[in-house]
Amino acid sequence: MMNPKIEKLIKLFAKLPRVGNRGGQRIALALLQDKTGRGNALAAAILDAMENISPCPRCGVLTDRGGGTCEFCRDATRANGQLCIVRDLSDVWTLEKSSVFHGRYHIIGGLLSGASGILPQDLNIKNLSSRIGDENITEIIFALPNTVEGKTTQHYIMSVIGNVPDVSFTELASGVPLGGELDYIDDGTLTLAFGGRKTL
Amino acid sequence: MMNPKIEKLIKLFAKLPRVGNRGGQRIALALLQDKTGRGNALAAAILDAMENISPCPRCGVLTDRGGGTCEFCRDATRANGQLCIVRDLSDVWTLEKSSVFHGRYHIIGGLLSGASGILPQDLNIKNLSSRIGDENITEIIFALPNTVEGKTTQHYIMSVIGNVPDVSFTELASGVPLGGELDYIDDGTLTLAFGGRKTL
Repeated sequence: MMNPKIEKLIKLFAKLPRVGNRGGQRIALALLQDKTGRGNALAAAILDAMENISPCPRCGVLTDRGGGTCEFCRDATRANGQLCIVRDLSDVWTLEKSSVFHGRYHIIGGLLSGASGILPQDLNIKNLSSRIGDENITEIIFALPNTVEGKTTQHYIMSVIGNVPDVSFTELASGVPLGGELDYIDDGTLTLAFGGRKTL
Repeated sequence: MMNPKIEKLIKLFAKLPRVGNRGGQRIALALLQDKTGRGNALAAAILDAMENISPCPRCGVLTDRGGGTCEFCRDATRANGQLCIVRDLSDVWTLEKSSVFHGRYHIIGGLLSGASGILPQDLNIKNLSSRIGDENITEIIFALPNTVEGKTTQHYIMSVIGNVPDVSFTELASGVPLGGELDYIDDGTLTLAFGGRKTL
């Protein structure tokens, strides 16, 4: 016998990534028993984000510029000719946290996959060729997952862009991760690491 | 460089039980990329619950009866003279799921603990003695956690209620859980199981 309003709240929380029914119960109880107004603050933040956040029309990064380009696209210091192609916004956040890259991003929004039915027209790549010219791109860096889907998508995008003078394609290096011990590394990674071995 | 509205949303989600920063990022992205209005539905359910849900004045179960007693307290079929004392609402849900108990509940809202500063006046036990008379209670079942805090709280509540004619106190049995193998059971549980062994 659970109150219907609480049950509805739990079900909605439970469907969020990695939460589940038990997590949903804990979250709902935590909010309902909280006396500092966390629940209302959370609801307000969700509504505010749902209302004002949309993808940047140029690169796909979620932003609140009302249909204008995002913070990355407006930042003149990032116009260094490098364009990094990633799957989604969380990859942008990961790269930003590492401070390894200071150019522009392009979020394609998914990987080609027969299993999950993602087709070329589902990828956000329509304006990729025009971006290369408009933004004087000289290097396109593929930072897609190192999986069959990632590599398939990468080759597809390269074939769509085709040969553009003075534009090079690069991809992240494959190999043994930092701190990786050989007996914990899978065969595929080892093969890639051997094939890509560097002269010292 | 993360959009402030998204950052705020992630931080609020991250503070929920067992979510954390990475989970908050996933949840925020899932809601922002969802086109079926899940975010707005979630926000509406939170606001509805925060506005309308409050503890039952008699037993402490969260309900939407506008300050009136809850579904359990109003259910005449549960007036069987048994009162089960639990820590919080999730314990009620657990017991309800097992269908093991069909009496009334009383949520005390916490356990006495020097470490977390929970004192007797923080427990929801003020009306316990009056409930015993009002509802013709004949058995008080303690279903508190089998921990030092749980047992301390149980003894404290028993001392507050004192001796009431025709009212018995019981507690859940301690022992080896169903499917439990002896070599995985801790010494404390084994001691309790031996002490409480049953004649066959």
